[in-house]
Amino acid sequence: MRLTDDDCRARLAAESVGRLATVSPSGAPHIVPITFALRVDDRRSDELCFAIDHKPKSTTELSRLRNLRHEPRVAILADAYDDDWSRLWWVRADGVARELPVGDRRPALDALAAKYGQYREVRPDGPVVAVHIVRWTGWSAADPT
Amino acid sequence: MRLTDDDCRARLAAESVGRLATVSPSGAPHIVPITFALRVDDRRSDELCFAIDHKPKSTTELSRLRNLRHEPRVAILADAYDDDWSRLWWVRADGVARELPVGDRRPALDALAAKYGQYREVRPDGPVVAVHIVRWTGWSAADPT
Repeated sequence: MRLTDDDCRARLAAESVGRLATVSPSGAPHIVPITFALRVDDRRSDELCFAIDHKPKSTTELSRLRNLRHEPRVAILADAYDDDWSRLWWVRADGVARELPVGDRRPALDALAAKYGQYREVRPDGPVVAVHIVRWTGWSAADPT
Repeated sequence: MRLTDDDCRARLAAESVGRLATVSPSGAPHIVPITFALRVDDRRSDELCFAIDHKPKSTTELSRLRNLRHEPRVAILADAYDDDWSRLWWVRADGVARELPVGDRRPALDALAAKYGQYREVRPDGPVVAVHIVRWTGWSAADPT
């Protein structure tokens, strides 16, 4: 039922949307959906990146940035729901987030553009965040083997 | 682009899965998918409930309970992803969670059973949590009017 780290990586990488959980300066949890790209280098140092893009935002859009500047620990979840509960699964990545300096954004933006056509048309021009993943947790109702 | 509270209520109630964000005793965010029921009474006191059920859990399954006993503030997100980004939307409910005493669980369990056939077949027999919702936040890429 537990998924291996490799299975977690593969499942998260294939998802179009993740949910980013952060903690506010007051200690409350915050959660928003994000588009993201997962970069796995050959040293197995996994990094998830996302950008503040041109999608319209609510007035609280910068809460995620305020929060991670205060508490860099974040969690990202992907999950599959199905009315057949034997098909449920989820993957969580726990990591440490940092905003990338302008000069260091290109690899992350390239990964986002490779994954999403919208980012090839309009490259994100806002802050870019990289999350160094320190722990994978995954669960599947079905035996994944 | 911002959704009204009534629109948030309707959209969340219609979703089968939500994502629950809590904060661990160490101050890190935690996130898991949950099945849930939304109860709106005529005084507009919204309550979201979920139960620890018979779905197999990973070894960390009780993190959500440990966390909310320590920090009762929680957030629940529902969202819709679509490759057409003009169709994206999400709803977040911020609230305060409490575990229900055994004698107070029936209305919550009835609401869960009314929503999910699996809970009519096997009624959850674990802890039941009620979240008093204190704030709705919702966003839609499309003008919802």
